[in-house]
Amino acid sequence: MSGLIKTLIKTSTLSLALGAIAFSATAADKVYRLKLAETWGPNFPIFGDATKNMAEMAEKMSNGRLQIRIDSSNKHKAPLGVFDMVKSGQYDMGHSASYYWKGKVPNTLYFTAMPFGMTPAEQYAWFYHGGGMELMEQVYTPHNVMSFPGGNSDIQMGGWFQKEINSVDDLQGLKMRIPGFAGEILADLGAKPTNIASGELYTSLERRTIDALEWVGPSLDLRMGFHKIAPYYYTGWHEPGSELQFLVNKRKFDSLPEDLQEILRIAMRTAAYDMYIHATHESGKNWASMKSEYPDVQVKDFPPEVMAAFRASNDKLLAEHAAKDALAKEIQMSQAAYLEQVRSWTDISHRAYLNSQAK
Amino acid sequence: MSGLIKTLIKTSTLSLALGAIAFSATAADKVYRLKLAETWGPNFPIFGDATKNMAEMAEKMSNGRLQIRIDSSNKHKAPLGVFDMVKSGQYDMGHSASYYWKGKVPNTLYFTAMPFGMTPAEQYAWFYHGGGMELMEQVYTPHNVMSFPGGNSDIQMGGWFQKEINSVDDLQGLKMRIPGFAGEILADLGAKPTNIASGELYTSLERRTIDALEWVGPSLDLRMGFHKIAPYYYTGWHEPGSELQFLVNKRKFDSLPEDLQEILRIAMRTAAYDMYIHATHESGKNWASMKSEYPDVQVKDFPPEVMAAFRASNDKLLAEHAAKDALAKEIQMSQAAYLEQVRSWTDISHRAYLNSQAK
Repeated sequence: MSGLIKTLIKTSTLSLALGAIAFSATAADKVYRLKLAETWGPNFPIFGDATKNMAEMAEKMSNGRLQIRIDSSNKHKAPLGVFDMVKSGQYDMGHSASYYWKGKVPNTLYFTAMPFGMTPAEQYAWFYHGGGMELMEQVYTPHNVMSFPGGNSDIQMGGWFQKEINSVDDLQGLKMRIPGFAGEILADLGAKPTNIASGELYTSLERRTIDALEWVGPSLDLRMGFHKIAPYYYTGWHEPGSELQFLVNKRKFDSLPEDLQEILRIAMRTAAYDMYIHATHESGKNWASMKSEYPDVQVKDFPPEVMAAFRASNDKLLAEHAAKDALAKEIQMSQAAYLEQVRSWTDISHRAYLNSQAK
Repeated sequence: MSGLIKTLIKTSTLSLALGAIAFSATAADKVYRLKLAETWGPNFPIFGDATKNMAEMAEKMSNGRLQIRIDSSNKHKAPLGVFDMVKSGQYDMGHSASYYWKGKVPNTLYFTAMPFGMTPAEQYAWFYHGGGMELMEQVYTPHNVMSFPGGNSDIQMGGWFQKEINSVDDLQGLKMRIPGFAGEILADLGAKPTNIASGELYTSLERRTIDALEWVGPSLDLRMGFHKIAPYYYTGWHEPGSELQFLVNKRKFDSLPEDLQEILRIAMRTAAYDMYIHATHESGKNWASMKSEYPDVQVKDFPPEVMAAFRASNDKLLAEHAAKDALAKEIQMSQAAYLEQVRSWTDISHRAYLNSQAK
């Protein structure tokens, strides 16, 4: 329609009244172009699919009025600069993970996944019905940034190990790639967490430069090939449902018409849920591939003694955070209370059902 | 905008060219009004919230161009006539559950929940990545109706019992309100499934006119009050994640502009996911209330012998369906293959994690 109007304006000598109509029609057709920086490289599976899914939904629902250009890390060169770039307005949006910003804004730690914390559905319930979104807003608003759930990777595995972990002693000196808060827990127990670029992980594990590593789970581990070189795949404890994050520059969001704000909000919410389901699917498919190619992979649970030690370190480190920061304490208490309530239900539904069906 | 244009048209003597602009602007502003019939009564918790959530998202995202009026069962008087009313075009949309139509269209049975079947996330993965949507389309398209996931109630409980079930013998003559396919399984094992109007359930259970009943789970059971009068709450097996359904008259859907089709599709998808998370929240909250008001409620698992009998009957009845209908067989095989693959993953993620955290 706007092309027709422009032609008419150029070729006509119509009055002010027609000018008003043309202006009004053009406003409704105005195209809003947003730029999104994602932490991931181009065509990154599952995570990158979530941003594309979000942008496609927004464009179709808005009849082309909302166009979101996605720049992967090869373009913007700052995978861990996404928060700053959205805050400054260099980018309008970001797709990343909240806990990456804990060095700058400590309380961002709490909005991805916590050790011994909530499963994906439990955590979505906390975000949307248990006060989680409001707490996240308190953390992000001072930075002129809005944060929304951005897709769940499902429960992450505990990692690939070259040797069995039968006791806390087995953790002493263990060289493991495990970043973030979980890495702090391992360090507290005498392990040696290291960070290694993803391209070097396979060789490091194969040559035993490291004894163990955690990545995600079968959905993304398959293509890394770890199952070919490490015999033990430990079940998870440290990220029981990592939720990625959409970031939006708040001034930019506020400048959009109300219908496009709602379209953007719903496109992000749906893309997040969709990614959780996509991760569930890819996990099942890829785990089947791993088992069929390498039937000797052994799934192991950490023994109760080791889990108890992980938990004790976790509690100690969380208490240190809470002692330093009232909002950290409030978030921790909200999560703990919500987890206690919802897990009582998960135990008599999901846990009971899955146990009754186990072969 | 359209008000301004109408005024201008009335008061102006502008040429054909202006008429063309005004027509075009009016088309983009045209309001599409759809009527939705829901199976539930007015203000029905969780299920009814899902339809309201869907309609609100659609209206806001379309800037008021898509308006959906919701009629509850007190209005249309045909809670189990929703499929027929959408098929005939008397209503444009419906909100119900697919398995209600199995008397008319037997293969609709498979798109709500199946005994010993998939959990909510597993089933969404089957719908969106495992061929489920395509199979559902095959079943519904001949009826000029489109069916979409409409919200998950989470894993349903096995029901409230006045006496313990310790063996298959205890099922003999057991009077239980349990409708649908699960009722057929109970009947096959010697129980006497009955159907009783929801308003009479409490009294029937209290006076022991029936020995047991299943409803949903804490999310909807709390307000029914069963926990006050029955001591045993059995864990679930027969509906491990009942997915409700949005129905849309296909001709009506096809008549919408493409952007409103996408808005409607995404509003339904999001409302479905949102309902699952809402049900998770309400289940946790209400289960906490039940336990605090009636701490003597005992949660029980059916013993393995009884579960094995349920499963054997289930397999027998499913085989009877499959023998009569090639599409039924295809759907069953698709579900069984998908379940086997995805459950292998759920077992090493959710089941392992929940067991490791159990108190």
